[in-house]
Amino acid sequence: MAVGLPPPDPASLLPVRGVELGVAMAGIRKADRTDLLVMRLAPGCTVAGVFTRNRFCAAPVIVAKRHLRHGARALVINTGNANAGTGDEGVRRALEVCRAAAHHLGCDPRQVLPFSTGVIMEPLPVERITAALPQALRDHSDWAEAAQAIMTTDTVPKAFSRKVRLSSGEAIVTGIAKGAGMIRPDMATMLAFVCTDAKVASKALDALVREAAGASFNCITVDGDTSTNDAFVLVATGRGPDASRKDDLRRLAQCVIGVSQQLAQAVVRDGEGATKFVTVRVERGRTLAECRRVAYAIAHSPLVKTAFFASDPNLGRILAAVGYAGVPGLDACKVDLFLDDVKVAQAGARHAGYEEREGVAAMKKPEFTLRVVLNRGTADATIWTCDLSFDYVKINAEYRT
Amino acid sequence: MAVGLPPPDPASLLPVRGVELGVAMAGIRKADRTDLLVMRLAPGCTVAGVFTRNRFCAAPVIVAKRHLRHGARALVINTGNANAGTGDEGVRRALEVCRAAAHHLGCDPRQVLPFSTGVIMEPLPVERITAALPQALRDHSDWAEAAQAIMTTDTVPKAFSRKVRLSSGEAIVTGIAKGAGMIRPDMATMLAFVCTDAKVASKALDALVREAAGASFNCITVDGDTSTNDAFVLVATGRGPDASRKDDLRRLAQCVIGVSQQLAQAVVRDGEGATKFVTVRVERGRTLAECRRVAYAIAHSPLVKTAFFASDPNLGRILAAVGYAGVPGLDACKVDLFLDDVKVAQAGARHAGYEEREGVAAMKKPEFTLRVVLNRGTADATIWTCDLSFDYVKINAEYRT
Repeated sequence: MAVGLPPPDPASLLPVRGVELGVAMAGIRKADRTDLLVMRLAPGCTVAGVFTRNRFCAAPVIVAKRHLRHGARALVINTGNANAGTGDEGVRRALEVCRAAAHHLGCDPRQVLPFSTGVIMEPLPVERITAALPQALRDHSDWAEAAQAIMTTDTVPKAFSRKVRLSSGEAIVTGIAKGAGMIRPDMATMLAFVCTDAKVASKALDALVREAAGASFNCITVDGDTSTNDAFVLVATGRGPDASRKDDLRRLAQCVIGVSQQLAQAVVRDGEGATKFVTVRVERGRTLAECRRVAYAIAHSPLVKTAFFASDPNLGRILAAVGYAGVPGLDACKVDLFLDDVKVAQAGARHAGYEEREGVAAMKKPEFTLRVVLNRGTADATIWTCDLSFDYVKINAEYRT
Repeated sequence: MAVGLPPPDPASLLPVRGVELGVAMAGIRKADRTDLLVMRLAPGCTVAGVFTRNRFCAAPVIVAKRHLRHGARALVINTGNANAGTGDEGVRRALEVCRAAAHHLGCDPRQVLPFSTGVIMEPLPVERITAALPQALRDHSDWAEAAQAIMTTDTVPKAFSRKVRLSSGEAIVTGIAKGAGMIRPDMATMLAFVCTDAKVASKALDALVREAAGASFNCITVDGDTSTNDAFVLVATGRGPDASRKDDLRRLAQCVIGVSQQLAQAVVRDGEGATKFVTVRVERGRTLAECRRVAYAIAHSPLVKTAFFASDPNLGRILAAVGYAGVPGLDACKVDLFLDDVKVAQAGARHAGYEEREGVAAMKKPEFTLRVVLNRGTADATIWTCDLSFDYVKINAEYRT
């Protein structure tokens, strides 16, 4: 059960001129579900992406990075198989998908970017994908159907749209993402695709995709496992208003960041087994890096996460995580803790006025903020995470087998 | 249910001359259980210890470190309350315990080392402890009863003994430990006390406690949470054979390391919710540090741990963890994986001869070894860990509340 994440209303998702969507049932892992999505891009789009830093990066990630600079005409995304840990043969199969799509589209295979998600270390059933490609290329689906077609253990499709007024007209930003487990992005999470009809030059788009990833997908964690297939791609079709003026680009950037944050938070809200959506905010540290370090230590602690699940303000576990986060010279006697507005710890010990029923009340809510104040500087960082429930174990002990 | 860890046979636990044990029911958290242990040390013992590096180190850790150099006459250990995250008041209460024990023993309060384990951030009920101290000081218990008295979520008391022949006679090494959760020692784990009747000078004992911690308690992880109260103390009473000759000291060291490893592995075998005891061995890395980094990335991955629980050789999760361990320049295409003797991956991809039923058979065993061969150097590292089961979530969602 996702936390505060209703399925997307298709009517709320705005088409992006220059992007056409098609899905198909390729039977990659399961029958009777759409598991192949093709995003067809009009000529002249600019495309930028950030990818996983996992050393075992998947074959499609290797290929997509290589193809990124050739003026992409299509993104081919399959679920059910990650084509990761598959060696040279995996790369060969990813290229075969590109060649097949290019053949149908009449473009260069290097203008096709492949993406895969699903089980790792199984050979990609490339012939099923190529067999289903004509269907996907003919199909016209909406963004909600596209989001549906890339799900794995996700329980809810993730898609958001926003509009932003630029000096030469209104631009659209629409994005989809998938991901629920193996979520601790180290550059970008699982798969996310955000498209705008604005016109943005390659270099500016490159900077924008990095900025947006830093403010969204790189601020979430479900289980601390960085995926082999993480990819976040930003497409600007240029069919709408121009965003080359500095103030237009800033406005567009805010809109892209907004959609990216909604998508990133949606991944956490739909985190495997999640019953709580928790914002961890670390304030008054010396550097952004140390604030993030403390925030991730808390968000990755199985003890803290099970306490979230139990709505148990077992504050010692939180302080313990702050203590082992590895911040040099951290003075434990200066640390304050808040659950929403309830001050639970002051100067490293239980706050005199704290009553446990207040802490329980805060944690019982499906969404709350845990705030750690280090009192040693002016930096701060925010990340989003979820709890660790029985269902996390159930989903991951049963997935695949 | 602990994995391969029968309760200790009291007859197998050898008394150590110069150490007397006494327990009492202080009612610190629960009635009708022993929760206070006093280890009385004869004059002239040498004592060395290693303690948690968690910045929120507990009040008793602060006091014990300070008192270590004053010729300890007693170790006072309580369970049920960790006296951590308790600020200056916590230190005051720990000192009060020392003063009360010293009063009864007729020694300096600085000759008493306090240790606490249990719930964090609750005030230590010092009056219950001081009220029960006379009883514990009068009592004569054996090592099995001592191990019992320091348990928290442990399901099995942990105690081991060995003998070693030195040039001037036979020395005894007996140790106890507690710990099942919040286990990712960063110097030493939870509480462990190892005593020998051999005569060892302070400086040599200091080196020995560090060497033994490095080879035992610093090689285990249950959940990646480094405790606030970790302490590993080594006592040499000097009532038995002398170990000052270099070869005697080596023999004694091997024996101390052996007992420490048994205790450390017992902590993992009794890890919260554990159904599997897994040895993770990383070979042919460039440095010990990078081998340990890879081993811990695997052992801390909730996805890998749930796969252990399911006996599911979901190898991609293991490779993914190797890939995000943060080893600079690691070439994923050189990595081999073994489950016991089954070669499952070669050169970063599934081994051609691997059949999944063999992997399942290896992982179904309650104990197995996962071996990762990096093929880039000559260093190796071994750590011990357990799986992540429904019961881990159950225990930690229900503990305290």
